[in-house]
Amino acid sequence: MSDVRIASAARAQSSYQQLLDELPRTGPGTRGGEMLRRYWHPVCLSANLQDIPIAVRMLCEDLVVFRDGNGRAGLLGIRCPHRLASLEYGQIRADGLMCSYHGWKYDVQGRCIDTPLEPCDSKVKENIRHLWYPVQEWGGVVWTYMGPEKESPPPLPKIDVLARDDGVVKLADGDIRNYNYLNWLENFADMGHATILHGLVVRDIPDELKPYNDYTIKNYSPLPLEHVETDFGMKTVAVLDTGDPQVKFVNTWSLVVPVHWRFSGIRSGFPPDFTDERQEGGGMIRIIDDTHFELLRYSLTRKGNFTGGWLFGLPKDLKGTAEEKPNDKRRYKGWEGIPALEDLVLQESQGEIPDRRLEHLATSDRGVIMLRRIWHKAMADVAEGRDPKAVWREAQPMLEVDTYHGHVHVNELKIGPANMPSSRHGAGLIRDKDGKLVFA
Amino acid sequence: MSDVRIASAARAQSSYQQLLDELPRTGPGTRGGEMLRRYWHPVCLSANLQDIPIAVRMLCEDLVVFRDGNGRAGLLGIRCPHRLASLEYGQIRADGLMCSYHGWKYDVQGRCIDTPLEPCDSKVKENIRHLWYPVQEWGGVVWTYMGPEKESPPPLPKIDVLARDDGVVKLADGDIRNYNYLNWLENFADMGHATILHGLVVRDIPDELKPYNDYTIKNYSPLPLEHVETDFGMKTVAVLDTGDPQVKFVNTWSLVVPVHWRFSGIRSGFPPDFTDERQEGGGMIRIIDDTHFELLRYSLTRKGNFTGGWLFGLPKDLKGTAEEKPNDKRRYKGWEGIPALEDLVLQESQGEIPDRRLEHLATSDRGVIMLRRIWHKAMADVAEGRDPKAVWREAQPMLEVDTYHGHVHVNELKIGPANMPSSRHGAGLIRDKDGKLVFA
Amino acid sequence: MSDVRIASAARAQSSYQQLLDELPRTGPGTRGGEMLRRYWHPVCLSANLQDIPIAVRMLCEDLVVFRDGNGRAGLLGIRCPHRLASLEYGQIRADGLMCSYHGWKYDVQGRCIDTPLEPCDSKVKENIRHLWYPVQEWGGVVWTYMGPEKESPPPLPKIDVLARDDGVVKLADGDIRNYNYLNWLENFADMGHATILHGLVVRDIPDELKPYNDYTIKNYSPLPLEHVETDFGMKTVAVLDTGDPQVKFVNTWSLVVPVHWRFSGIRSGFPPDFTDERQEGGGMIRIIDDTHFELLRYSLTRKGNFTGGWLFGLPKDLKGTAEEKPNDKRRYKGWEGIPALEDLVLQESQGEIPDRRLEHLATSDRGVIMLRRIWHKAMADVAEGRDPKAVWREAQPMLEVDTYHGHVHVNELKIGPANMPSSRHGAGLIRDKDGKLVFA
Repeated sequence: MSDVRIASAARAQSSYQQLLDELPRTGPGTRGGEMLRRYWHPVCLSANLQDIPIAVRMLCEDLVVFRDGNGRAGLLGIRCPHRLASLEYGQIRADGLMCSYHGWKYDVQGRCIDTPLEPCDSKVKENIRHLWYPVQEWGGVVWTYMGPEKESPPPLPKIDVLARDDGVVKLADGDIRNYNYLNWLENFADMGHATILHGLVVRDIPDELKPYNDYTIKNYSPLPLEHVETDFGMKTVAVLDTGDPQVKFVNTWSLVVPVHWRFSGIRSGFPPDFTDERQEGGGMIRIIDDTHFELLRYSLTRKGNFTGGWLFGLPKDLKGTAEEKPNDKRRYKGWEGIPALEDLVLQESQGEIPDRRLEHLATSDRGVIMLRRIWHKAMADVAEGRDPKAVWREAQPMLEVDTYHGHVHVNELKIGPANMPSSRHGAGLIRDKDGKLVFA
Repeated sequence: MSDVRIASAARAQSSYQQLLDELPRTGPGTRGGEMLRRYWHPVCLSANLQDIPIAVRMLCEDLVVFRDGNGRAGLLGIRCPHRLASLEYGQIRADGLMCSYHGWKYDVQGRCIDTPLEPCDSKVKENIRHLWYPVQEWGGVVWTYMGPEKESPPPLPKIDVLARDDGVVKLADGDIRNYNYLNWLENFADMGHATILHGLVVRDIPDELKPYNDYTIKNYSPLPLEHVETDFGMKTVAVLDTGDPQVKFVNTWSLVVPVHWRFSGIRSGFPPDFTDERQEGGGMIRIIDDTHFELLRYSLTRKGNFTGGWLFGLPKDLKGTAEEKPNDKRRYKGWEGIPALEDLVLQESQGEIPDRRLEHLATSDRGVIMLRRIWHKAMADVAEGRDPKAVWREAQPMLEVDTYHGHVHVNELKIGPANMPSSRHGAGLIRDKDGKLVFA
Repeated sequence: MSDVRIASAARAQSSYQQLLDELPRTGPGTRGGEMLRRYWHPVCLSANLQDIPIAVRMLCEDLVVFRDGNGRAGLLGIRCPHRLASLEYGQIRADGLMCSYHGWKYDVQGRCIDTPLEPCDSKVKENIRHLWYPVQEWGGVVWTYMGPEKESPPPLPKIDVLARDDGVVKLADGDIRNYNYLNWLENFADMGHATILHGLVVRDIPDELKPYNDYTIKNYSPLPLEHVETDFGMKTVAVLDTGDPQVKFVNTWSLVVPVHWRFSGIRSGFPPDFTDERQEGGGMIRIIDDTHFELLRYSLTRKGNFTGGWLFGLPKDLKGTAEEKPNDKRRYKGWEGIPALEDLVLQESQGEIPDRRLEHLATSDRGVIMLRRIWHKAMADVAEGRDPKAVWREAQPMLEVDTYHGHVHVNELKIGPANMPSSRHGAGLIRDKDGKLVFA
């Protein structure tokens, strides 16, 4: 190589190292954190926000979320600006949250509305504006926007599944992880791992599904995966043979920048779906800080849906189905056999923030590479003053995330950004084997 | 503003920021720590110093306190100067403390008095002088002086309450906090908080006291407080109406630089005291390091004293009287209703060392500001070689801390440094409604 | 002193301070750690290495030890070089260890032998060589060499006791300490402490042994100890009177650089050994990092050996025989009375890494000083490219560590490097009272 080429390669290398360092950051002032602050984030479930303030750490900031006596939710800096007592121990009042120490009271927009120990004519209230972030409640979730347009933020994108009324929607919180949120997202962008990790224990599969199981699991063959960038993020598509050369079985996993995921199907694409029994699975990540996050999962169960199948979330005792041996001294013993636990164990094992400079990526990491490119572009967009991917400014955006799971005639099958973009506009959705447009 | 004025304001601002950083420091070589080292500090209760050495951290220094076989208390550096084994595991001997490792023995003044594994004619003992601090026992407390005059320290100030023999004195230790001692002292210098914080739960008050309770608590009105600098520190005085325009009800809270506090009255001044039933409450702080301290409380109960009333110290289970709700996930649940616990929760919530640059002080913080001025002056005095406030060099000083609690005729009522100074000289004490001089 | 002499003394002082800082270091790139990497180290007991990989930290490096399906032990870097998942959760396969995440598989020499998600013609395997260290199993122990000659390391020195077949050899692991390994070794090089520390509780000794016990323990007299540098490390020899001026009782404690120790005799030399009942005690240190190590102990019990006596290792409840008093709030209460626990308490009390610049060494520290000189020399040898002490390059070295414990005629008694060197060559061993050469 010429010196010029070497220097250019060194710059590219160094630029990639810099990207690896910036990617997992979530705090204010970091490239990662500034990008994240252009989106709405889940704070907690509405049902859990009652008559006690709750300390929440969001994107490295210590905040308190509360519901005032009139039912309005608010999100404020956790320390009272007077003498720094924690508003986690504040008192709910009709019009705001009162610090228990000296009675200073704040409304949901951080305005100081009472200072009872000050003289009647005191103007001190007028000089205080406490840290606040706008909050909206929708779909059973309290959402916030922590970015520069907080006085007039872009509209909250609604989540299609949470808007459904043709089935039962369930929401679950409380699954808190002690590592960076990108360990989780990269796992999701990398569906190739399913063949190995989730195939370690060969499960009891109904006879009619065995061929599909055998095809991938028993031979540890890679799934035929395609990764497609969409206008909401990216999706991974698997197209499997069915025996009938005119019909394929398609499964999809989708990520919406920066914290949403969706997969469909009880068995995430391994078995075909001969019936309309289908369970939409998905959720979103509450990013706590660089090394902690919480998973908020949801599911939609419609009439006739298969109700058995894989566990929704982690088993409470964090035990898998593998035998727990007496000589096993690891943190997780007998952990194999339950996919959500398998993912937890491997993601956590990568380290709080993996030192990605030590990686050796290969072809199976195409999804991970796509994710990083999307994050890189979003960070650059924000740094240069542009809206990043998946920030929409029209009223009432609805995130319709296509995660098709079913049979497709080969002449209907088209995979690519042009015909499988975001389903927000209803365009490009894959049709089912009867030619019917599939919703999600 | 002119450039000169701006520069001057910036210097003042910067000087105040520097003060805020220095105030909470307790270690050797810090301005705060050097000031603290001019005073006697409590180490432990005499009753707890028996036949086992006790590791004690004092002002960021790791020490061991012990009582030799002859009954003398000593305070030494915790690590044996020979090979650094901890003297916490040393053996009590008649004339000192023996390191369990090689038998080197030290007397209460750090002199090495035995090295049994060395040859009979060894001079090694003579070259060793282990770190030691002078210790005195008085009033049930082991005291030490850790300053530059340790060979001939200023006399130990006695504490009036602990010298009393007309009632029962109780001493209690073991209340260790995980935050800076100034969080506690500033809370005490700021009695305005009582109306809000200790009024969150309206308690069951005897009928005859209700008016006083209603006046302050139910309306969250600020108490009429005056703050007075004294020659021992500062005090806060509340003068309340009684209904009789010729008679006021007076309550006092006092701080003695740097670790003593006193309040009188079972109910700390809220209700009037129609009888002689009175309970002196007070104590002192054992400063462990920048983020830990221990409260040593005492009380004097005399004949006829009201024996109910507020709790002395923290409830063992750290539970208040408020209902504990199932959705309360905070560290302290149902914490409201017991003043000592209310104070703990709010003080701890300010942070291990509060970032005071984020404060917004107001008129209710006059007491806190006075405290900081006194600390500032004491640190400056020490830095410039002068004795700080409340270091006395006469023999046998007695800290008579006036904390009057009772009725006063308006023509007797004078509040100010001139007539309400330290009561060490018996001067300036407020008289009761019969004109009798009130002790404390 | 002249200026030149002062400057020279300052340099010597500064050079000693530097040595004290370097001595306890164990990580790669440190002088201490580079020296340690010239030796074979124990990793775990063979019996414990079964069908589950075990995370092991060795000399500050995070590794995984495993046994493949063909029975070969391997030691690899803990993180899979693909995407950094922990191989602690890998799967044992016949020919190596498979990462559970994407199935990449490594043999015991770090070669990547499978990448099942990559295309059949992928060359990615060939570009991966994972961190590995050579492993040998011998004597019930898995050993490794982590130095620069890992492709062709010097031969593993065998341990005489572990090769014995004339008695029962027991191995015990699991005693993990939270401080630097040199706290332990310096304790062993300093047998003078036995008189004080292990004499704190006077034990119930059989009548015929009382004189020896009384001589040393009851008077806290120093043992008559000699320290001798050997070609394997150093040994400490005690020569005690027996009453017969022609016969001495000799006891020996030996250290082999850098992690082996040996002592003989149930009672470590205090009582004489009138019979052939003898128990070889010894072991080795697994150095985890600068502040953690594990003790791997072994013993050889031969026919007729005394089976009572002192405990082998720590009592499980970490309680001594001394009364546990209610006012004892220390971490170890009533700790006196069991030597292994006494040693633990005092070693731990010196601090994770003692600040040796604060020491005051005396004549009883001759053994400690010898140990430091040996370490200093070994570190300098390694830094200058020479083999340090106790690295042998001949085939099949056997570490025959002379730890004689018994009676000697005065005319047989010679102590010194010339006639009590390493017993690897069978030379210089002390004879017993019948003139018979004593093995170990």
